[in-house]
Formats: sequence, C-alpha cells, structure tokens
Amino acid sequence: MNVLLVYAHPEPKSLNGSLKNFSVKHLEAAGHIVQVSDLYAMQWKASLDASDSMDREAGARFDPALDSKRAFENGRQSEDIALEQKKLLWADALILQFPLWWFSLPAILKGWVERVYAYGFAYGVGEHSDAHWGDRYGEGTLAGKRAMLVVTTGGWESHYGPRGINGPMDDILFPIQHGILYYPGFDVLPPFVVHRTSRIDEARFSEICGALGQRLDDLWKTAPIPFRPQNAGAYDIPELTLRADISPGQTGFAAHIE
Amino acid sequence: MNVLLVYAHPEPKSLNGSLKNFSVKHLEAAGHIVQVSDLYAMQWKASLDASDSMDREAGARFDPALDSKRAFENGRQSEDIALEQKKLLWADALILQFPLWWFSLPAILKGWVERVYAYGFAYGVGEHSDAHWGDRYGEGTLAGKRAMLVVTTGGWESHYGPRGINGPMDDILFPIQHGILYYPGFDVLPPFVVHRTSRIDEARFSEICGALGQRLDDLWKTAPIPFRPQNAGAYDIPELTLRADISPGQTGFAAHIE
Repeated sequence: MNVLLVYAHPEPKSLNGSLKNFSVKHLEAAGHIVQVSDLYAMQWKASLDASDSMDREAGARFDPALDSKRAFENGRQSEDIALEQKKLLWADALILQFPLWWFSLPAILKGWVERVYAYGFAYGVGEHSDAHWGDRYGEGTLAGKRAMLVVTTGGWESHYGPRGINGPMDDILFPIQHGILYYPGFDVLPPFVVHRTSRIDEARFSEICGALGQRLDDLWKTAPIPFRPQNAGAYDIPELTLRADISPGQTGFAAHIE
Repeated sequence: MNVLLVYAHPEPKSLNGSLKNFSVKHLEAAGHIVQVSDLYAMQWKASLDASDSMDREAGARFDPALDSKRAFENGRQSEDIALEQKKLLWADALILQFPLWWFSLPAILKGWVERVYAYGFAYGVGEHSDAHWGDRYGEGTLAGKRAMLVVTTGGWESHYGPRGINGPMDDILFPIQHGILYYPGFDVLPPFVVHRTSRIDEARFSEICGALGQRLDDLWKTAPIPFRPQNAGAYDIPELTLRADISPGQTGFAAHIE
C-alpha cells in the first residue's frame, strides 16, 4: 500500500525525528511504499495568501475560498500545493505526525492543511443546496483512504484524561480528526499518543517503537473512529444538527460518534 | 486603557478587515490606545524554528522549549518576538481576530502564539515541582489582563450549536480560550462570533458593528468565562485532574468551568 507521512518537527535529532525514521523503515520493511512530506525540511510556506494562485489580476480582492476554487479548477495553483494534493490522491493511508503545540497542530502543519485543502478538492465538493450540504464528513475526494495521527506531548497522560486540566485528548483532537480528516472523507483511526516526551530513555523508546510498530502493522485492520456520516440520515439538513431521535439529549463532540 | 488587536486575514477589503477597522476606530473614539498586529501585513514568520534564537551554536540540536528558554532569559530572542511580547505586557486587553479556518486559528496566528509564547514568558513560569505545576491556568505573566476572540465563520450558527455537526463553538474554541489565553493568565471574555460571512449585506454589517461595539464598550465590565484556576484547590497535583469532590462524575471541557 501507499503511505503518505506528513511530518512537522524542526529538529531531525528529536524524538519526533526518530519516530518518523522508525515509521518509514517499519512500513517499508512490510512492503509498503512511503512518501514523507517533511514540512520543515521542505521549508513549507505556512501562510495561505494570494500568491497561492498563479496569474491573479494585480490588485484584485483576494477571497481565500473563491481564489482557491478558481486556481484548483484551472490548474493554476502554486506548484507546492498541487504536488501535495497528488501525494494525497496517491496515498492509501495518511499519517500526520507532530508535537502537540498549544493544544493543536504546529503552525507549519496547520498551514499545510489550509493551503493543500483547496476548494473543490477538500471542501466545496459535491452538490451544495438546502437538500445536500456537500460531500463531506464521511464522503469526499479522500473517501476510502485511512488516516491516523501520531502525536507527542510534554505533559502527563493524566493531564489529558477525562478530568485532566487540559481537557480530554479525544476532545482536543476532535477538530483535527473530525474537522480536518473525516471532513474530506478519510476513515480516521484512533490516534497514537506519546506523553512526557522529556522523560524518554532507551527502554521507554523501544517500548514506544514496539507499540507504534503494532499500530502500523494494523493500519488496514484497526477499526476507525465511528464518526456519523453527514448524509446518511443522522442530521437534519440544512441545519446540520443531529436528528431529535439520534442520541436524544446528547450534546458536544462525542454526540457525533456512533 | 491599552488594547492590542492581533489580526489575521490576508485581504484588507474583507469582512474581517472592515471589522478590524471598525474596532480600532470604536476603541479610539472611547479614549483607548490601540496597537494592531496585522500579521499578514507584517509578513509575520509563522513557523517556529532555530532562527528564533540569536547566536545559537551552529549545528547544535534545536530544542523548541529549551532554546526558547535560553533566548528569553538572555535577551537573545528574534526581534519580532521580543516586540510582540512588549505589546502584550503593555496591553490591558488582547483581542485575537481571525476567520475560523479548519476549526482553529489560521496558521499565521497559530505561529504568532508559538513564537511569542516563549518559555519563561507564557509557559515554564513559576515553581515546577510535584507540589506546584507552574503559574498557569489563571496565573502567570499575563494575569490581570483581559482577552477576547473575534471570530468569523462561513457556516451557520446551527452547524456550531450544541448538536451541530461541527461541534459546539464553545468546545471548538476551548483549546484557544483555555489552552492559549487562560493558560498564561488572561481573564477570557465570551467570544464574539459572526456566522455566514458570505451572506452579509449593509444592514447585517451595521447590525454586527452595533453588537461588536457594545462588546468593546463592555470590555472591562463583561464577566469572564469562569475557568477553574489550577492552583486554588480544584485539582490534584501533580496529576492535574479535578479533585473527586469537584463536579463529581463530570468529564470533558465543560468540567473546567465553574
């Protein structure tokens, strides 16, 4: 199978760098083909702006969505964006690997999402009307592919537990797993999370590699997080709220998991 | 009072640009002093990396936290970072204004947080031991100041409601309001959110300005979100989980609000 690993850490000799190298070797040893988008090494341009479209009219008002749509339709996207879209289409599975900085993606990886996820590619796909609000949340360009987060944090697991002060890790990752990965169609596997990154000795590192290797071996077997598809009847459209008879009374992120 | 407005939109003629201009005028007319960090206009460097510290040893392993700590302590931070920290110390109130892109901050604004929030400035402040896990979540360098988000979205309000498909707006914003603003000490006011940005005519725009103006007038009166302080007894330390007798059985983001 084809695996795209999008990786965001500025230091190759970091724990993240070692885990990335481990994953590539492990997947290749199992016969998979791996491409790595090493965003810092690529000096990935993080900020979405008018220069992401080629040949725009000078001085024209820049509309992030409509300019993206036009450039995508007409093949006038910046080359770096088109290349990453090709990798996504090529991949059977996507891994996003990053340190959790301020409870979210590092800016360089957030900017990869913003720029690569063009209108017509990752959003604005399918009919948009009061009866069908796009092919998204379970449908879309990337449907049929799998995705998984590999995340490191400095804090303890308990700090991210159900009653931990940072909030539960599942909730912190929901806007990424549901809002960024499930949205354009990915089946999203449970994340692989490493805590207390400043306290990792040889023994702990090899334990982590063992567990990560297992997750990579199971990439095509692990059951995805059962997010509710938008267009299979659970939601009223166009309000896009859960139908009254679906988990009555339940609110919050978890209500969107079957 | 002194207000710092950190603003992230690539197009000055956008709705966001107009709202930013409105806020500056409105606050100045009320006698406040306003500084704007217009991140796109400043060509703010979004990606945190080794060049954020001056005079690092060539080839030395880059550690995002420890290099930040050293540079902050020794006055060897990149100038753009030191300048934003000065603005934060000067401000009585901080407004972050941005379009919600993929359910979070635009990359350029996320990168402002990552780079300006140095170790020793916004984290790693105060005693760190098994008895006291830093001055954070209600304490810290920015305690006593107020902060508020001004956010725009393309989607409908119902899409972000308690049972809306994107998840409730309060939960989407929790990692920002609690994890980025409350963490270094800000009192965080309820956000000002504008929905359906593609459907805003003159009448709706002046309605929005009216409501935003009211929120700006009330900047020093509005009750902050009552997040629970880390070091006032609600949490077991160092696990940093809610004490068993605090909202027994409650889990998730909302458990951290009194």
